[in-house]
Amino acid sequence: MQTQKENNKNNLIAEIISVGTEVLLGDTINTNAAFLGKELAGMGIFVCYMSVVGDNNVRLENTMKIAIDRADIIITTGGLGPTYDDLTKETIAKLLCLEMKTDNHSLNRIKDFFARTNRELTENNFKQALMPTGAIALDNDFGTAPGLIIDTSNSNKNISNNNKIIIMLPGPPREMQPMFNNKVRPFLFNKYSNNKKLFSKTINIFGIGEAKVESMFADLMKTSTNPTIAPYAKLGELELRITALANDEKEALTIINPTIKQITDKLGEKVYGIDAGSMQKEVVKILTAKELTLSTAESCTGGYLSKRITDIDGASKIYLGGIIAYSNEVKMQLLDVRKDTLNKYGAVSEQVAKEMAKGVAIKLNTDIGISITGIAGPTTYLTNKPTGLVYIGYYDRKTNLNYAIELHLARGYKDERESIRYIASSAALFEIIRNHQ
Amino acid sequence: MQTQKENNKNNLIAEIISVGTEVLLGDTINTNAAFLGKELAGMGIFVCYMSVVGDNNVRLENTMKIAIDRADIIITTGGLGPTYDDLTKETIAKLLCLEMKTDNHSLNRIKDFFARTNRELTENNFKQALMPTGAIALDNDFGTAPGLIIDTSNSNKNISNNNKIIIMLPGPPREMQPMFNNKVRPFLFNKYSNNKKLFSKTINIFGIGEAKVESMFADLMKTSTNPTIAPYAKLGELELRITALANDEKEALTIINPTIKQITDKLGEKVYGIDAGSMQKEVVKILTAKELTLSTAESCTGGYLSKRITDIDGASKIYLGGIIAYSNEVKMQLLDVRKDTLNKYGAVSEQVAKEMAKGVAIKLNTDIGISITGIAGPTTYLTNKPTGLVYIGYYDRKTNLNYAIELHLARGYKDERESIRYIASSAALFEIIRNHQ
Repeated sequence: MQTQKENNKNNLIAEIISVGTEVLLGDTINTNAAFLGKELAGMGIFVCYMSVVGDNNVRLENTMKIAIDRADIIITTGGLGPTYDDLTKETIAKLLCLEMKTDNHSLNRIKDFFARTNRELTENNFKQALMPTGAIALDNDFGTAPGLIIDTSNSNKNISNNNKIIIMLPGPPREMQPMFNNKVRPFLFNKYSNNKKLFSKTINIFGIGEAKVESMFADLMKTSTNPTIAPYAKLGELELRITALANDEKEALTIINPTIKQITDKLGEKVYGIDAGSMQKEVVKILTAKELTLSTAESCTGGYLSKRITDIDGASKIYLGGIIAYSNEVKMQLLDVRKDTLNKYGAVSEQVAKEMAKGVAIKLNTDIGISITGIAGPTTYLTNKPTGLVYIGYYDRKTNLNYAIELHLARGYKDERESIRYIASSAALFEIIRNHQ
Repeated sequence: MQTQKENNKNNLIAEIISVGTEVLLGDTINTNAAFLGKELAGMGIFVCYMSVVGDNNVRLENTMKIAIDRADIIITTGGLGPTYDDLTKETIAKLLCLEMKTDNHSLNRIKDFFARTNRELTENNFKQALMPTGAIALDNDFGTAPGLIIDTSNSNKNISNNNKIIIMLPGPPREMQPMFNNKVRPFLFNKYSNNKKLFSKTINIFGIGEAKVESMFADLMKTSTNPTIAPYAKLGELELRITALANDEKEALTIINPTIKQITDKLGEKVYGIDAGSMQKEVVKILTAKELTLSTAESCTGGYLSKRITDIDGASKIYLGGIIAYSNEVKMQLLDVRKDTLNKYGAVSEQVAKEMAKGVAIKLNTDIGISITGIAGPTTYLTNKPTGLVYIGYYDRKTNLNYAIELHLARGYKDERESIRYIASSAALFEIIRNHQ
């Protein structure tokens, strides 16, 4: 938060108000606020508060009053439609003592839209062309409700601090997002920018916790202001986002790259990529570049690993297929795991994982075979091994390298089946990356 | 809303405050607020405002002051972690002039957790056991941070209207949701109910849209107040939750069951279960009861179907395994799909789907074989067939029934790969249920 303020010479503070009873009822998840928060942060404008309020003029006025008091830029979404419960413009105009007048440009666009789509224009629709005096209308290219901007430094003498920007956008994301990108962003840049922009790179990390990484780089993370370093924990993974304020990308990289080097040097092979997107994306990218093929043999993950690999469009270039060997019979029959091995060590063992990886690579004729066998729980069938015990087997046909690693993935929470299976599949993806970086 | 108010004699007003800079930055979409809004609405408690505030004690205190002034129940999510920027408890305790004391029960649970998982307990973690005086601790079964409830009518004389409930929940949804369901909901019922309780049953529907179902039952849904009928749309599915206010479960069922019968009679086989939980859960339940075994053969879904089946603890009773035949070679070699069939009809065809289903059932020696082949897109390799074309193949060993159905799952949106793969796997699960209901 501190660094963001420093990034921005004007210390601009924005507030987002989402208008709509459907959001309060949980029928609509508020992705608009997330979109705007991310976009504004990227522009160096910090959002201090977000609010949701229903289609109710009293509560909207209250919320707006509080926002005008504490923010420089207020962005509302929703409540610009043609029906009686769309109140945003009217309520805000009343609060600012602005008259509503028909905006002819907007009215003509609405008329054109209805003519073009052969729909009947009703009295209600004229309401959408009404604008508070002095407002800048924002054309809506994906719907009928225009958005608007009120700059109180130009137009309004009725609020104490008359240097506020109030932006009203439609509620549907497919209308709101392009209106923000094409109309609001240029307006804000034009008004506020010091010509610098934010650039980011992300370091992708697996196999080390957020607390550990924070303690390793505590000084750097706390003191560095350009670039800033922000951690984002995901299940089993950690992303560090390194962000620079610079005039152009080239300058940004000279600011970002030394920090990336410093961190990756210290974390070593725990870093699986830069701007990787996901482990599965990195696997497909690496193996495609090396022209290597992959097959999978899964027991406890039951297809989670193959599902994640095939999430990536283009996986078919490197991924030929897999065998889900949930029962021991399938392990023996399709993966050539030996009965002796199963009897001696059990299905969840280093030895079986190794045989599964080799078995699938040979059966499917791929360069690499990767396997997972483990106990996802919570019920443990026919074994006294603990929930969370997982073996990842690896086989490389060219070098005949064949090994397995042992993992303990239970954290003692209730119902860890999903996280054990997810992290087991992540560990398998990581093993492939680690062998080919 | 009307029915909700009528259900609730006290006209209770709730406010939700989400604490976390990651929400303001748009890095986390605020699903917690949507979840709580929906759950509270279902209990007849209306949420008038939602707010988001960063990890900043001044702004959290401001937001909390405003909320206490205008709501009866305030629920916060986030900011209960062990690090220095987790401030929710401390800030609210200060505002209410409550001292922080260690809650020994919570401390012991945290110690147990670290001992059980062989992790090192650091000084920070003790902070999570601190509670404002008089607070009720809520055990966290899925993480280390306990939640808490402050009932100011019991414990606090420092705020003007001393009949407020303040509930603090952890931020991660997988910790927050069960804590709300298992601890907060019973607490609120106990406090506010007029001795009646809410009972719900859910009708699980696949293959018919929300708008269609709403139009079929528009009158019933609008006019029925006990039971109420609320639709919840999920990707490719629809749930109708029928909720009755009653003195006990027996009375509730006499209120709920006629409505369930009325709806299921009209929707026929589109209803795949009552309180099913998920399609995969229903599949495991039905096949376990009938002592039938299942295997899967997947192409475009690449393990998504098998992953979902094995999400269910106990799937190993009915699910023996599967083959992911991403390449044509694997389809021929492991599933005995004939080269002729592939050449004549292509990999994405009714004929190949049928052969895949039969092939996997015979290879893995199961009662049922189910297959998926299709084009998930967005890139279409080596085919002129359209993205979204999917065939589900079915084979029943006992009856020798072997057929395939054709689906068109593209909606024309950008980036539909995930939804096409998900709905294709749902359609396969539905086909198994439909044949065994």
